Amino acid sequence: MFVHKIDEDLSLKLIEYRDAQNIFNLINNSRAYLREWLPWLDSTTKLEAQVDYIKASLDGFSKRKSINTVILFQNQIVGIAGYNEINWSNKTVYIGYWLSEEFQGKRIMTRVAKALTNYVFTDLALNKVEIRVATSNIKSRGIPERLGFTNEGCIRQAEWLYDHYVDHVVYGVLANEWSS
Amino acid sequence: MFVHKIDEDLSLKLIEYRDAQNIFNLINNSRAYLREWLPWLDSTTKLEAQVDYIKASLDGFSKRKSINTVILFQNQIVGIAGYNEINWSNKTVYIGYWLSEEFQGKRIMTRVAKALTNYVFTDLALNKVEIRVATSNIKSRGIPERLGFTNEGCIRQAEWLYDHYVDHVVYGVLANEWSS
Amino acid sequence: MFVHKIDEDLSLKLIEYRDAQNIFNLINNSRAYLREWLPWLDSTTKLEAQVDYIKASLDGFSKRKSINTVILFQNQIVGIAGYNEINWSNKTVYIGYWLSEEFQGKRIMTRVAKALTNYVFTDLALNKVEIRVATSNIKSRGIPERLGFTNEGCIRQAEWLYDHYVDHVVYGVLANEWSS
Amino acid sequence: MFVHKIDEDLSLKLIEYRDAQNIFNLINNSRAYLREWLPWLDSTTKLEAQVDYIKASLDGFSKRKSINTVILFQNQIVGIAGYNEINWSNKTVYIGYWLSEEFQGKRIMTRVAKALTNYVFTDLALNKVEIRVATSNIKSRGIPERLGFTNEGCIRQAEWLYDHYVDHVVYGVLANEWSS
Amino acid sequence: MFVHKIDEDLSLKLIEYRDAQNIFNLINNSRAYLREWLPWLDSTTKLEAQVDYIKASLDGFSKRKSINTVILFQNQIVGIAGYNEINWSNKTVYIGYWLSEEFQGKRIMTRVAKALTNYVFTDLALNKVEIRVATSNIKSRGIPERLGFTNEGCIRQAEWLYDHYVDHVVYGVLANEWSS
Amino acid sequence: MFVHKIDEDLSLKLIEYRDAQNIFNLINNSRAYLREWLPWLDSTTKLEAQVDYIKASLDGFSKRKSINTVILFQNQIVGIAGYNEINWSNKTVYIGYWLSEEFQGKRIMTRVAKALTNYVFTDLALNKVEIRVATSNIKSRGIPERLGFTNEGCIRQAEWLYDHYVDHVVYGVLANEWSS
Repeated sequence: MFVHKIDEDLSLKLIEYRDAQNIFNLINNSRAYLREWLPWLDSTTKLEAQVDYIKASLDGFSKRKSINTVILFQNQIVGIAGYNEINWSNKTVYIGYWLSEEFQGKRIMTRVAKALTNYVFTDLALNKVEIRVATSNIKSRGIPERLGFTNEGCIRQAEWLYDHYVDHVVYGVLANEWSS
Repeated sequence: MFVHKIDEDLSLKLIEYRDAQNIFNLINNSRAYLREWLPWLDSTTKLEAQVDYIKASLDGFSKRKSINTVILFQNQIVGIAGYNEINWSNKTVYIGYWLSEEFQGKRIMTRVAKALTNYVFTDLALNKVEIRVATSNIKSRGIPERLGFTNEGCIRQAEWLYDHYVDHVVYGVLANEWSS
Repeated sequence: MFVHKIDEDLSLKLIEYRDAQNIFNLINNSRAYLREWLPWLDSTTKLEAQVDYIKASLDGFSKRKSINTVILFQNQIVGIAGYNEINWSNKTVYIGYWLSEEFQGKRIMTRVAKALTNYVFTDLALNKVEIRVATSNIKSRGIPERLGFTNEGCIRQAEWLYDHYVDHVVYGVLANEWSS
Repeated sequence: MFVHKIDEDLSLKLIEYRDAQNIFNLINNSRAYLREWLPWLDSTTKLEAQVDYIKASLDGFSKRKSINTVILFQNQIVGIAGYNEINWSNKTVYIGYWLSEEFQGKRIMTRVAKALTNYVFTDLALNKVEIRVATSNIKSRGIPERLGFTNEGCIRQAEWLYDHYVDHVVYGVLANEWSS
Repeated sequence: MFVHKIDEDLSLKLIEYRDAQNIFNLINNSRAYLREWLPWLDSTTKLEAQVDYIKASLDGFSKRKSINTVILFQNQIVGIAGYNEINWSNKTVYIGYWLSEEFQGKRIMTRVAKALTNYVFTDLALNKVEIRVATSNIKSRGIPERLGFTNEGCIRQAEWLYDHYVDHVVYGVLANEWSS
Repeated sequence: MFVHKIDEDLSLKLIEYRDAQNIFNLINNSRAYLREWLPWLDSTTKLEAQVDYIKASLDGFSKRKSINTVILFQNQIVGIAGYNEINWSNKTVYIGYWLSEEFQGKRIMTRVAKALTNYVFTDLALNKVEIRVATSNIKSRGIPERLGFTNEGCIRQAEWLYDHYVDHVVYGVLANEWSS
């Protein structure tokens, strides 16, 4: 029901229970593609996993700890994006996202990340946005780089991906650096 | 953040913690006016009551029991509307609403109730919308009547208002009767 | 253990865990009969469903939201009756009930509903009792009618019964109308 | 509402929220008397303590851990009695009780303890009832002794009473010893 | 991680999740032996039961209701001991324990019970330690007896063991009797 | 009760409720000193804040999310150290610590951090330890540097300290780099 419009093609919709089947289908169509960089593909092979995810998302939203949205491109769900972890004391937030394989190449995620960052500074009144990306995930790193985020460091072996660790680059942008 | 647009002037925004002060101010400016028909004016004289209300609203939202929104008129909060009680087994829903005194007379609430009813049938896929109004609240009764709801009965002494009981008219509209 | 005596033959006992098997047997013996007007027959085909129901009943009782009793006729469980939903703010209560097929025709339910209504006004000090019955359930409608309840309206398509909707008649009686 | 009748004069009623004021008054009238053997007099000087106690009692009841009743003598609340701790694995139960000062000397508590013991063996199908009494509380010890309980031991310094410890006598009776 | 050292050979370690497999193996090697006096052998035939037990133990620890430790003999887990139930109002505590079959005969449990009792009086500042043992469990009774506990009574049919009841001897020692 | 011994002078004890007063005194004696780098000094001016902290700590411990210990130097509490956040999926952990002013200069914290790091790799079997320190907190930065941690980046404006933001250096060490 509730939508944050980005431009004519794109908007973010607060995740809802009835999105479960559509998200599940989207994942199924991109499973091999997504598995390269995301750790949860093997634990989401049933629809129930999506229902649990939505339940956890809405619980996080109601407690102001996180906000998860579905990305709507021309009214179709094409991925997930949101604030994974909101720290109200330190006024920082992590942005996380994924996009299905077939919608790559349209600059969708850059526009989404830009809109999410705008919202952090203009509406949530926080001070910093961080994005963490696996070091060798060149495509995903392009997003914070295009948006002018600063590379603040490389956190080694930060994440376990099925059978190996990956390093993370931490990108950050401060409220006083950002001009929407 | 999340908005359901009705028309150029009007939209519904999922209630958020940072709305507390604005809602509280709105209530304070209309306290005597609202108290004629609403039972909660005496228990909401402090800002904390709004925070508790928002917390309960978001909890209800995350459990799919209710949805509360603030009504935005020209980007300003002018009232509250939403689904008070969603019954997924019987596929029915109650709509509730209030509007501050100074924004009366602009057909705001009729447009809001129409949009909420549309959404019930098109997106939530429920079967019936009910609105309960105090029998002598002529202004509020006009809303379901203008929208073509059927008067289904008068529930006597249905609500305690500070020092007296009021009767309720139950209005209802079915999915197969509604043409948005 | 705890019993509310109605007359020589009849009493209401607060539901207990050790009633689970007896209630389950009772339902099994009347399953087709009860299924005509009650929505829960298909989800109570195992004993565990009764244990869950009793657990929910006792939880509702301890929170003052509802009271469920077994109807004892000559010391035998013959049905369930109680207050489904107690609204302490508005001082109203819904009465719900069912009786197994073989104990029909003894005016048991009329006596039970009368006793439950008495108790609402004399002990719980509430203001109104409501009974909602499916419009075409003539036998059940006889109960509030014999007790002098007022027909306050017909709520259309109020309940989903397996494969169709049924309308509900709302009956109500006020404290100042009732003489036990 | 729910009553377990003992004889013409006496019954046990499941504790209810609306008993709070009456129990509180009863305690206030016997405060010095009760304080000799009960540990909770100093923490129950406000009505809210009774409401909390009733809430905890009903919660224990709904979870089958304990049952607290008010003792009604000629329809008046004169004390509290019940099962403090039900152990369903070992099939044992503790009985606890107190009676206000002015109703002493009528054998009320002996009749109550007898009824509670009967109920344990006939309805709850447990195997053993225990009563623990302070060693020097001669009056209270008379109750299990009159009912034929066996003195099973003296647990030294078992309870802290404001400024000193008291020893407890443990009395017990087994199902196969009891003839109601 | 956290260890309470008793002597060169013996220590008590706060139970941890990663002990589950070792405890489970220990039980499996002594199942017939332990089953003579302990009631939980038939409900712990899967590893998950140990995980649940550890979870409950840590929850009890964090709420100050109980403390469960693994007994380490020469750095190997040989049994479980701890405070089953801490009563902060009456300043009493129950000690419970079991030791696998192959480590019997080394006075391990007497040393453990002595250490646990010391700790109750010196650090927890409680007033009394109780140990309850089945009357005919001569070996286990030797422990409180060697430590100078007083036999305070025989609680008849206190515990259900699969197919029969056993009586319990209650042993107790007071702070002012104990000299570590 | 439960202690992890580091050397003759130093050990870590799992935090307990009865430490509340001692920790509170320790903070009070170092309040101005600690306030330079820690954000919680203004919200811990009453003893209750320590009780809440201990409660949260034990809850985190029982859920395996964190472990907080008091640092004992010659049997006296001199600070707090532990694992703030354990990530079992990625096998990483953050170490956090503070030491009161008067015990500075004894290399206490370096020994503590070394012992905590050892334990992560040898017992918890995790893969990485991180320590985050404010960039200009030279003294605290010395600890991971002396222990051979790698500086992995500078997270800008990572923390709000009363009236200004501070940057954080992230130090990390991997299991395969560590030789205790």
